[in-house]
Amino acid sequence: MRHKLRIIPLGGVGEIGKNMTVIEYGDDILVIDCGLIFPDEMMPGIDVVIPDMTYLEQNKERIRGICITHGHEDHIGAIPYAMERFRCPIYGTRFTNALIHHKLDEHHLTDVEVIDVDPGQAVQLGCFKVEFIKTGHSIAGAVAFAIQTPIGTLIHTGDFKIDLTPIDGEPIDINRFAYYGTRGVLALMSDSTNVERTGFTQSEKEIGKTFEQCFDKAKGRVIVASFASNVYRLQQVADVAIAHGRVVCFQGRSMEQVVRFAQELGYMRVPADKIVRVEQLKNIPDNMVCVMTTGSQGEPMSGLFRMANATHKLNIGPGDTVIISASAIPGNERGVSRVINALYEKGADVVYDRMADVHVSGHACAGELRLMLEIIKPKYFIPVHGEARHLKMHAALAKEQGVLPERTFIAHNGAVIELSARKGVMNEAVQAGSVMVDGLKDVEDVVLRDRKSLSEDGLVVAVIVLDAETGRLLAPIELFSRGFIYMRDNEPLIERAGELVYETAKRFESTDKNEYQAVKNAVRSKLKSFLYDETGRTPMILPITMEV
Amino acid sequence: MRHKLRIIPLGGVGEIGKNMTVIEYGDDILVIDCGLIFPDEMMPGIDVVIPDMTYLEQNKERIRGICITHGHEDHIGAIPYAMERFRCPIYGTRFTNALIHHKLDEHHLTDVEVIDVDPGQAVQLGCFKVEFIKTGHSIAGAVAFAIQTPIGTLIHTGDFKIDLTPIDGEPIDINRFAYYGTRGVLALMSDSTNVERTGFTQSEKEIGKTFEQCFDKAKGRVIVASFASNVYRLQQVADVAIAHGRVVCFQGRSMEQVVRFAQELGYMRVPADKIVRVEQLKNIPDNMVCVMTTGSQGEPMSGLFRMANATHKLNIGPGDTVIISASAIPGNERGVSRVINALYEKGADVVYDRMADVHVSGHACAGELRLMLEIIKPKYFIPVHGEARHLKMHAALAKEQGVLPERTFIAHNGAVIELSARKGVMNEAVQAGSVMVDGLKDVEDVVLRDRKSLSEDGLVVAVIVLDAETGRLLAPIELFSRGFIYMRDNEPLIERAGELVYETAKRFESTDKNEYQAVKNAVRSKLKSFLYDETGRTPMILPITMEV
Repeated sequence: MRHKLRIIPLGGVGEIGKNMTVIEYGDDILVIDCGLIFPDEMMPGIDVVIPDMTYLEQNKERIRGICITHGHEDHIGAIPYAMERFRCPIYGTRFTNALIHHKLDEHHLTDVEVIDVDPGQAVQLGCFKVEFIKTGHSIAGAVAFAIQTPIGTLIHTGDFKIDLTPIDGEPIDINRFAYYGTRGVLALMSDSTNVERTGFTQSEKEIGKTFEQCFDKAKGRVIVASFASNVYRLQQVADVAIAHGRVVCFQGRSMEQVVRFAQELGYMRVPADKIVRVEQLKNIPDNMVCVMTTGSQGEPMSGLFRMANATHKLNIGPGDTVIISASAIPGNERGVSRVINALYEKGADVVYDRMADVHVSGHACAGELRLMLEIIKPKYFIPVHGEARHLKMHAALAKEQGVLPERTFIAHNGAVIELSARKGVMNEAVQAGSVMVDGLKDVEDVVLRDRKSLSEDGLVVAVIVLDAETGRLLAPIELFSRGFIYMRDNEPLIERAGELVYETAKRFESTDKNEYQAVKNAVRSKLKSFLYDETGRTPMILPITMEV
Repeated sequence: MRHKLRIIPLGGVGEIGKNMTVIEYGDDILVIDCGLIFPDEMMPGIDVVIPDMTYLEQNKERIRGICITHGHEDHIGAIPYAMERFRCPIYGTRFTNALIHHKLDEHHLTDVEVIDVDPGQAVQLGCFKVEFIKTGHSIAGAVAFAIQTPIGTLIHTGDFKIDLTPIDGEPIDINRFAYYGTRGVLALMSDSTNVERTGFTQSEKEIGKTFEQCFDKAKGRVIVASFASNVYRLQQVADVAIAHGRVVCFQGRSMEQVVRFAQELGYMRVPADKIVRVEQLKNIPDNMVCVMTTGSQGEPMSGLFRMANATHKLNIGPGDTVIISASAIPGNERGVSRVINALYEKGADVVYDRMADVHVSGHACAGELRLMLEIIKPKYFIPVHGEARHLKMHAALAKEQGVLPERTFIAHNGAVIELSARKGVMNEAVQAGSVMVDGLKDVEDVVLRDRKSLSEDGLVVAVIVLDAETGRLLAPIELFSRGFIYMRDNEPLIERAGELVYETAKRFESTDKNEYQAVKNAVRSKLKSFLYDETGRTPMILPITMEV
């Protein structure tokens, strides 16, 4: 009997982040990527958000492996959480795996099998043969997958752009995509992140000119903030810096680590005698120094933020040139703006994306996406890595390139796309969604709702001590608040509120025990309307009865 | 004796928002604008943020009036709060005043003197003669001020752009600026919002072409989201809609109100027989309908948000074309993105600023700012309406246009710029800053800090009932939490925590009363480290002792 091929996105469709896709046929499950997404302002206190992996946990004995397209957090960040739930080997390129090992170590997971695969190689995972194809992205070691299944070939692009003049000199392997396109591809899953932008994404090399100009003009130190994992950017800046007679200092733990991996694995080639440690900088003239640091998103713990706010040994000031070589990720705009202002206030010259070409995207624009569709000529098309609008736009684009609309699937997380040689349907769904992690545990929605509510108007606790026998009040009511009003300045108000609660709570004495909840509710509602009338605020109210 | 002229920004420098500037000479104080700023994600529960007006309260008998440049919230929003602290007449153009009256009514302030001044007119306020000069901005009735003082003329541009083809046919009164420039201007205060952008801001009329194209293509209803106060935008859309055989429906309370004011005052001219109410729409074919609504910033209570989420009688669906005619204000990017996705999911065609020219800014770019400097040729220059980087860039630009750097003042809120005919200094400062308003009251920093902390990991309350005489524990410890963990799923953990607290709290019995705080602190720290070890979270801990 022939099985059907099932493609199930568990993350990354209808959102940008926490990418994870399940491919299954018969008894075999293959997983592509295992990413996280960072929480937004609706999720206070949450550290990370990962895909709901219940479906995989329920089928864990069938999982043959996880193949990783590249080492960004939205593709590898949930691996430790997955490895606490099930085990299988993980396959990635060498740079990707260096980042994965580092992450596993942080979570004290030392016994996970992580296997290096070079672009051009293939691995057999159950019935799936997965070939790693070199692409280009804003991180080293990015690949796409050609997955040969019993009923046809799937192509998953991962995040990609088509950069014909990449820093490492090795462009995306177009001919390998063409090879599969010519043979016939059952389904294409393709990156939708930049589908809103027309044309082609600029080459990484284009921004080299801007760096040249900045270094030409700079009289003092040059500080460049970028993502640590964008080793092509780091290499490019280092090349320009060294050509201008400067040494380079990679600053910050993640930056130093990534550079070490990248140098060891051959992804970066900065001469060792041009690299200095931050301690050595005081002996080097400012105009011979280039510092590379993290913090391009304005993150409060990052190198750049601390340099701008005088809590870092490299205190930025007049004479320094700071280049923020990134654009703000949606949601980070205010943070980036704050750090730019802080740098201006310090007297530094600041160059950022609004002023000059100091950043290019790592994702394909509409032109490249069309080219990929044209090369692959897929029978079925599944746009991935995008919010609703990106997926819809990518589908519209595929239609223009000749993919039949009824063969394009705009999926949601958990949707099951079932393909056979003759037809494709998307009817079923499996459990999927977001798991919010705070500290060591998942967070329930009710807890999150409470946090939101506490953050709005705070909380008032009213403690009522009763005689366990008679319900008589044994002490005056004590009120405590946090995040509501400044209690010291509002003693009369608190006192009146306490009296109000006392009056209501006296009803405990004349009330049957199983009616106590009603009295508690009365306390809550009296106190609530009193406080609203007096302050215009509605804090959470927590009446506590203690029976003695 | 000659007095010195003092210029004191109380808001709007080092930030974009809550604009307010004090001008004083001898016994006379003149105030320019009185705006608010909306809270950011660091200020949970805060409704609005207004300037600290302590300095004005202390000098209220000297205030001759407040002159308002235009009716945006960051220029008029704090007027009701000011009028609760002091009283003086308010001067604005007729459209500005319509918005001010509406705002005062909402605050039940019925006895404030609000005086209409037309562009070209002047008012005498103490020793100051203030002329209202027509400018252009993304709201009707915007003006700049030429303020004649005993020692020279000040020009305050307000928010402006130089639009030579404005919708109302009346461009900015350049010749009046030139008149003052030729006579000699002591100091210029000029809008810095868009100084990062080179060239000239596009004319409002430019985007008319995009509207034409959208209406040409639309087969069903066209829904346009914009700011209610941008009556030029509303007029332009209405003109195109009517030319395409459609009627227009202004939807939402603020939109309807603004249109009513604007039509009455002659700022908008839409034929009454082309305006329909939402109830009438069901009798009109979709291809004859244009709806204008609020919600261009993705605000959850707005018309567009509710239409996109099926909680509005106008439910958006396939066939509808939605034009979001605005760009996201920094901080709103995610909200806008969410509403666009929701509209796509509904099946609507969506046109927004990334895809087409559907919005132009209301602020002058660097080219216009240079032109203003060139026309005014001020002796002193004070860039206003900008964050640190904008003020610095505007100062650099003024230097290039010939203003001496030592005569340019990059101020902070509260800075006192003292000008005489011979010299200008910025040494002193008065009390200034932000007042956060939540409900009816200001919010202290400590309350805000508590809210932030509560939102991160919630709170745990431990109630300890003691014998008032002996310190003996009279009941088991009760623990309550909100926003920390879901208590029902974690009963064993809570139980162990209660036992831990009991063990520590037993020390009350053997402790002198004035040492109780030490025991409380011990309870807090034990509980804190226990909960951190178990959950990886650090909730706020509130130990409460009740003595009976």
